[in-house]
Amino acid sequence: MSELRIIEVGPRDGLQNEPTPIPLEVKARFIANLIEAGAKEIEVTSFVHPKWVPQLADADELLATIPRPEGVHFSALVPNRRGLDRALASGVNRIALFTAASEAFTTKNINMTIAESLAEFRAVADAFREAVPNAFIRGYVSTVVECPFAGPVAPSQVKEVIDHLIQIGVDEISLGDTIGVAIPDDIQRLADALEPALSPSQTAWHFHDTRGTAMANVAAMVERGYRAFDASAGGLGGCPYAPGAGGNLATEDLIYYLERKGLATGWDLDRLVQAGSEVFAHLNRPSASRVHQAVLAACR
Amino acid sequence: MSELRIIEVGPRDGLQNEPTPIPLEVKARFIANLIEAGAKEIEVTSFVHPKWVPQLADADELLATIPRPEGVHFSALVPNRRGLDRALASGVNRIALFTAASEAFTTKNINMTIAESLAEFRAVADAFREAVPNAFIRGYVSTVVECPFAGPVAPSQVKEVIDHLIQIGVDEISLGDTIGVAIPDDIQRLADALEPALSPSQTAWHFHDTRGTAMANVAAMVERGYRAFDASAGGLGGCPYAPGAGGNLATEDLIYYLERKGLATGWDLDRLVQAGSEVFAHLNRPSASRVHQAVLAACR
Repeated sequence: MSELRIIEVGPRDGLQNEPTPIPLEVKARFIANLIEAGAKEIEVTSFVHPKWVPQLADADELLATIPRPEGVHFSALVPNRRGLDRALASGVNRIALFTAASEAFTTKNINMTIAESLAEFRAVADAFREAVPNAFIRGYVSTVVECPFAGPVAPSQVKEVIDHLIQIGVDEISLGDTIGVAIPDDIQRLADALEPALSPSQTAWHFHDTRGTAMANVAAMVERGYRAFDASAGGLGGCPYAPGAGGNLATEDLIYYLERKGLATGWDLDRLVQAGSEVFAHLNRPSASRVHQAVLAACR
Repeated sequence: MSELRIIEVGPRDGLQNEPTPIPLEVKARFIANLIEAGAKEIEVTSFVHPKWVPQLADADELLATIPRPEGVHFSALVPNRRGLDRALASGVNRIALFTAASEAFTTKNINMTIAESLAEFRAVADAFREAVPNAFIRGYVSTVVECPFAGPVAPSQVKEVIDHLIQIGVDEISLGDTIGVAIPDDIQRLADALEPALSPSQTAWHFHDTRGTAMANVAAMVERGYRAFDASAGGLGGCPYAPGAGGNLATEDLIYYLERKGLATGWDLDRLVQAGSEVFAHLNRPSASRVHQAVLAACR
C-alpha cells in the first residue's frame, strides 16, 4: 500500500481561484502555519504570467521569502518554458505541469491543443530534469470526467493522455474533476480504465466539491487503495467557471475522514483551522470546510 | 430493491434547528414549493411544546392552512401524548416518534431514560393506530454512532433499541447520526449489526453533514441497497449542539448524486433551489447546499 499523502494546494489552486488578492506576508504566514499544522507537501504558487493570474504575481518574491524546512516538499505550477526559467531561479525541485483530457478545455484555458500542451510539457520536463537534481514532476490532468465546454469526457480520452504522460516521464499524475460533477461511479469507471498502466502509487486524486461529492469520491478511492489526495485548506478556491460555487476539497474535511478511518495523517486539525482563518478573514468570507466550521463552533 | 424515497425534513428538522423563526406564510409557501419541486414525503412540523421549540409554535395553524394534495405524504413529529392530541386534531396520518441509542442523550434532550421514552413511544403509537386508519409510524433513533454527551455509541446499543421498536411496531426507523461524526466505515458496522432484523425497506438514513461526511455515507448505503434517505432543502438546520456548525444533509446534494447514479428521484433541482431560496433570504444566510450554490452560479 502506498504511503498516505496529502498534497496541500491552497496557496496555489486555492488562491488562484479566489478573486481577492492576498498580501505576500499573509501568504508567507499561511504557508508557515500550514507546515506547523503538519503539511509535508505544499504547492505554494504558480509561475503563470501575472496578467493571467494576478493573485499569484508575487511568486518569485514568495519563494525567495519563505523558509523551506527540511522534510517539507515545496512545488510550483509551471505553465510553459517562460515559467520554467522563474522556477529554476527559485530553486524548487518540484514542479507541476498542466494538460487536460478535453481538447476544448486546453484550447480555451491555455490556448493549445492537447498535443501542443504535451509537447510543451515534454520540453519543460526534460529541461527541468536536466537542470535539477532529485527533480520531481507532477502532471495535472484536468477535466477527467467532464469538460465545462465540451461535456462528458470518456475514460479512454483520459487514458490516451495518461499514456503520453507516462511515456514523457512523470513522477505522479493528479487527476482532476475540474468542475466537480463526478460521483464515485464515475471515478471507479475511470480508475478501471487507467489501471494497471497507471498505478495508485503514481496517482493523486484532485476532487472538487462543487456539487458536494468530493468526500464520497475520496472514500471510494481510499477503499480502492489510493492514498494520495489534493486538498485545499478551508476549501480555498471556488469553482473557476462560476463565481459563488464551491471548488476544492477542504483539507480539514479530508483529514477528519482519514483520521477516523485509522489512517494517521500527521496533521493537527486545530492548527490547520487557524492557518486558514487569517486568509478567510482577508477574503471576508467563511471557510467552505464543514470541519473548519465544526471546530470553530466547538461542536460535539 | 426498495423504492427510492427522499423524506424532506426541512420544514421540521431544518427549521427546528435554525435560530430565526420563519413566518407562517413563508413556511406554507415553502411547503407548496417543495411539492412543486417533487417532494412526496414531507415532515412539515412538530407538535412539541412551543416553549421548547418556538420556531414550530404554529404547527396547528400550519397544518390547518396548507393544501394537502393527493399523492403527497405529510408527517409530523410527536414527542409525547400531549402532542398526540394535537396531531389527531390536525388529521395527519403519519407521525414520527423519538428515541435515541444513548441514555445520556434521551435524558438531556427529553428528560427520559431510553426505557421511559420507549414506553411513551408505545403508548402514543398504540393510540395513534387505534384512532387513524392507514396510520404510518416512523421511529427516529438519534445518536446511532456517537452521543454529544456520552461519546461513542456501540452498534449493539442501537440494536437493542431497534429490537424494542420492531416489537412495539413501527413502519420505519430513521437512524440518525445526530452530530455528524460518522464515516462510511461506522455506518457499515452499524448496518452489519442491525441487518437482517431491520431490513433496508424499513430503514431511512438520517445523516448529518457537520463534518462533511453525509454524502459519502449516502453513497455507501446506496451501494449496500438502502433506498430511503432524510434530507433538508438547502441543508436547512444547523448542528443542534453548536451554533454555526452544519447539520442536515442537503436535499439538492442528495438528488444530484442519486440522479447521476441513474436513480430517478422525480425532483426538479431548479425548483428545489428556488423553494429554499426564500427561506434562506429570511434567515439571512446562504444555503449550506453545494448544489444549491452551483445552480445559482449556473456552474458548468
